[in-house]
Amino acid sequence: MNYRAPTQDIRFVFRELAGLDDVLALPGFEEVNSELVDAVLEENGRFVEQAVAPLNRAGDTTPAAWDDGKVRTSPGFQEAFREFAAGGWQGLQHEPRWGGQGLPKLVAAATGENINSANLAFSLCPLLTDGVIEALAMVGSQAQQDLYIPPMLEGRWTGTMNLTEPQAGSDLALVQTRAVGQDDGSYRLSGQKIFITYGEHDLAENIVHLVLARTPQAPAGVKGISLFLVPKFLLNDDGTLGKRNDVWCASLEHKLGIHGSPTAVLLYGSGQGEAGPGAVGYLIGEENRGLEYMFIMMNAARFAVGIQGIALAERALQQAGAYAAERLQGRALEGSDGPVAIVHHPDVQRMLMTMRALTEGARALAYVAAGECDRARHAADPQARARHQAVYDFLVPVVKGFSTESAVEVASLGIQVHGGMGFIEETGAAQYYRDARILPIYEGTTAIQANDFVGRKTLRDAGAVAGALAEQVRATVAQLEARQAEAGEHGAGLALIARRLAAAVEAYEQAVAYIVAHAREDQRAVFLGSVPYLMLAGLTLAGWQMARAALACVARLQDGDAEPFHARKLATAVFYAAHLLPRAQALSASILEGGVAARYARAAENAE
Amino acid sequence: MNYRAPTQDIRFVFRELAGLDDVLALPGFEEVNSELVDAVLEENGRFVEQAVAPLNRAGDTTPAAWDDGKVRTSPGFQEAFREFAAGGWQGLQHEPRWGGQGLPKLVAAATGENINSANLAFSLCPLLTDGVIEALAMVGSQAQQDLYIPPMLEGRWTGTMNLTEPQAGSDLALVQTRAVGQDDGSYRLSGQKIFITYGEHDLAENIVHLVLARTPQAPAGVKGISLFLVPKFLLNDDGTLGKRNDVWCASLEHKLGIHGSPTAVLLYGSGQGEAGPGAVGYLIGEENRGLEYMFIMMNAARFAVGIQGIALAERALQQAGAYAAERLQGRALEGSDGPVAIVHHPDVQRMLMTMRALTEGARALAYVAAGECDRARHAADPQARARHQAVYDFLVPVVKGFSTESAVEVASLGIQVHGGMGFIEETGAAQYYRDARILPIYEGTTAIQANDFVGRKTLRDAGAVAGALAEQVRATVAQLEARQAEAGEHGAGLALIARRLAAAVEAYEQAVAYIVAHAREDQRAVFLGSVPYLMLAGLTLAGWQMARAALACVARLQDGDAEPFHARKLATAVFYAAHLLPRAQALSASILEGGVAARYARAAENAE
Repeated sequence: MNYRAPTQDIRFVFRELAGLDDVLALPGFEEVNSELVDAVLEENGRFVEQAVAPLNRAGDTTPAAWDDGKVRTSPGFQEAFREFAAGGWQGLQHEPRWGGQGLPKLVAAATGENINSANLAFSLCPLLTDGVIEALAMVGSQAQQDLYIPPMLEGRWTGTMNLTEPQAGSDLALVQTRAVGQDDGSYRLSGQKIFITYGEHDLAENIVHLVLARTPQAPAGVKGISLFLVPKFLLNDDGTLGKRNDVWCASLEHKLGIHGSPTAVLLYGSGQGEAGPGAVGYLIGEENRGLEYMFIMMNAARFAVGIQGIALAERALQQAGAYAAERLQGRALEGSDGPVAIVHHPDVQRMLMTMRALTEGARALAYVAAGECDRARHAADPQARARHQAVYDFLVPVVKGFSTESAVEVASLGIQVHGGMGFIEETGAAQYYRDARILPIYEGTTAIQANDFVGRKTLRDAGAVAGALAEQVRATVAQLEARQAEAGEHGAGLALIARRLAAAVEAYEQAVAYIVAHAREDQRAVFLGSVPYLMLAGLTLAGWQMARAALACVARLQDGDAEPFHARKLATAVFYAAHLLPRAQALSASILEGGVAARYARAAENAE
Repeated sequence: MNYRAPTQDIRFVFRELAGLDDVLALPGFEEVNSELVDAVLEENGRFVEQAVAPLNRAGDTTPAAWDDGKVRTSPGFQEAFREFAAGGWQGLQHEPRWGGQGLPKLVAAATGENINSANLAFSLCPLLTDGVIEALAMVGSQAQQDLYIPPMLEGRWTGTMNLTEPQAGSDLALVQTRAVGQDDGSYRLSGQKIFITYGEHDLAENIVHLVLARTPQAPAGVKGISLFLVPKFLLNDDGTLGKRNDVWCASLEHKLGIHGSPTAVLLYGSGQGEAGPGAVGYLIGEENRGLEYMFIMMNAARFAVGIQGIALAERALQQAGAYAAERLQGRALEGSDGPVAIVHHPDVQRMLMTMRALTEGARALAYVAAGECDRARHAADPQARARHQAVYDFLVPVVKGFSTESAVEVASLGIQVHGGMGFIEETGAAQYYRDARILPIYEGTTAIQANDFVGRKTLRDAGAVAGALAEQVRATVAQLEARQAEAGEHGAGLALIARRLAAAVEAYEQAVAYIVAHAREDQRAVFLGSVPYLMLAGLTLAGWQMARAALACVARLQDGDAEPFHARKLATAVFYAAHLLPRAQALSASILEGGVAARYARAAENAE
């Protein structure tokens, strides 16, 4: 199936929901205008459709392969990466002073979605590199930035994040990799890191590893972790590549999905480097603040993985939609002479609309969050910056958790739409189902996102940001109610959305109130409901965006300048309200019943 | 991970929920007693744990392989199948007159679950053979029964169901395979069948294919389909194997999961048989009634696939539970000196309890349904038989749809519990996620089940059976309410279950009423909600069984003769009520809002 970038929906979300014009009016975006953004979207769509999407299946069937420490990537990946580099896509959202193009994160969210739709496994390489660039830009020294960022922006080098060790996954307190200071100010690292995405490959000349490790006198736990930069090839004084550093790929994992993405076991300091034993590393920022720095990178990466969820869902939706439009099977419900395309059967319609509603809802929420990030970074007023930053911080775990859990649901429905053909690997739908499954796991599982969401994002300000967003949702409900009388034939749709959105935001507010009220006295009950709370927030806030989209579509339809797109978007928004928003009551009930459920779970544990 | 048959839960469900004693008191089960049933369960558990479960992974990594028309099954499958045959397991629920053991379907449901937990891909062979035996027993001639059933019961031969063709999947009206009558009363078949499970293999001497095909003068559509028996090897007059028939395996499919199960493309009448061109087949029953007969087989197979869902869920649960009990990561919520097993983290608990609740709820409902089937077949009173048959028929699509959709959810959660390790194939959790995905598809997709459930099972009797079950659920709610005052510390749990079950059954009744009321005037809206309605019924009726289980457990706990099992079961029932039953409101709302959603979906279709 040919992938087509969903440019029309992206542009709609940019303009109608995420406030592209306001973002472009922010200080720092003087060089960017709306025409440029359109041109970027168009060029990006063309590039990923032609150069990246066709490699998706080959990446699955011919995984990256390990041979004596070297890794050969899947067929076509090298050339596609060269094109990616030549197109300047890595620098899109990074600062011009290092060679970037300084476009808003909002735009980068869309191009990031496109390339991940085209080929999730391929796109992980630039995704991780982005995180490394962002971390260096925030906490690297001037010298580190000048040495390492430009080659990454040019696509000559790539970057990785090294957190996980066999005994230290979600629990980074257990990191054991050691870093011993040397007389010249550098460090020598030794230890084993696992699950390192693109930890070794043949796409670029050098790889910049950011590595969590402990210095000898570091305190135990998370407060004794430092962050180091360990290049695969050390740099000569003139910046050219020098000796091969003592970091080696011991093996690649055999994974359920994203086969095209090499997931490496990396050995640091096994003694075979050209610069002697121990991987040479350079401290980033200050000792023992590694976790804090890593979170900078993680926040960028978490948002990016949320975008991956939307991307994967979009691809699965396109594949299923194309199949359903072609496959003839069964008579039409209202009668037909012969078999009709299955897209006309109500349950296929339900599945496709569920897929579309989740995808478009998650996209709208993520792009709105990206716009908040741009405002947080660029608004002239420091108070406005802080306010937008708080909203963005609140939304990051939601975007990550909701989009990726939704991607799994969407990919699974994608198989179901295909019936038996969906289970056959050659069809392609199965790959999305396999690929999607990593998304709610890496860069922090949904539970980790939910812990962050409950702890740092909700309890710390006693639900202030959560409540402020609820008020905005209520304002949209009021708008829907105000508009429905004069909306003519669309009154019923707006009324349905208003009714369901009001119920959802009420459920969401109840959950926030329960969590704030019980966090101290009944912590276990609260955290038993943490993932449902995150999903409830995602469902409601994405539903809010769909409701805003519906208002915009009705306006266009009533003005008489609507395209088929707007009728479909409105139908998707109505469907979201009718079929998805009711989940809010279920989620909120499960949170509010948490106390009793937790008590019985405890009693059962004790009985055994 | 070692699989252990869940014998304690099976026995609990047999006795407390499915009424084993009443079933054993039915005419025809005079030879069976409760001790025999226990012995069968124990022996079955031992057999599948030792002989079948250890082959599960090898079946995944070394799929059945095609070589010039022959199929070599995965390592160990031949020997395990010999043991299966020698143990008499194929004959468990079939009639003694052909060599079966005549045990209740209730018992066969449990042994069927066990073997499928142990190895889903392996167990598909006996599952399909069961369907063929059942079809022959119901509509085959005496001669056909005597010739073909005993060797299948002995495990010397196996059976297959041949429905699907490339253009005819869910829509059997499109079947094109031709059967031309011969002078000797036999037929010659030609055509291509796809997705034929164990269509070719090396486990048995002969394969009995049941094939849907059209005779030359047959009317178009489903009323022109006949059912034929086509053996791989024709029989000599003395019943020994004779000439190789003209049915050949052209290839095997490359599938997402159940790799150990060969899924064959079969060519009938390609001209290479030893008995001349055209596959020799024998008409089963009367011409043009094939679809009707196939439904006999399908009903058995659909129930069996529902059992597969429970089996897969149980296996995924056991694997995730074992991992969570061993993996140390993070501090306890209430504080701990070092990392604790992740099973103690609230969200891991939530996931495991969701898995357990869905698995045990689906099991209880399926076994209750099996007990209804036994009553339908064996009750002395014809009216009672009809009543039980109606309940069983109502429950078959629910068991199939709900158990298999739940299996996908459970297997997905199983990966999530493992975190990053879940995505690594060697861990094993990924196999369940892949294997599970076929379950809501084959033997009729969930949508096909839902069509049947809405059309034949709900509308045809204007919701009579649906309503009768709702009344029974309400009776359980009343019992819960009556018991809670004197239930001491368990009053809160029973109250919670009562509250949530009452809300769920109300949602279910609303849905039934909506469907019955709108089926004529707004068919599209009703069928847009058909799968949600099926899931709502499954959720509510399985929740009802969990509620009945809770009552039984509280009685045991109050009597002081409870085991840890009962505390855990009660906690699972409470969790089911708190976290799963609230989904009922979401499902029912999506059904009731169907009219508006369908209208907008239609408008969008027309706009494009």
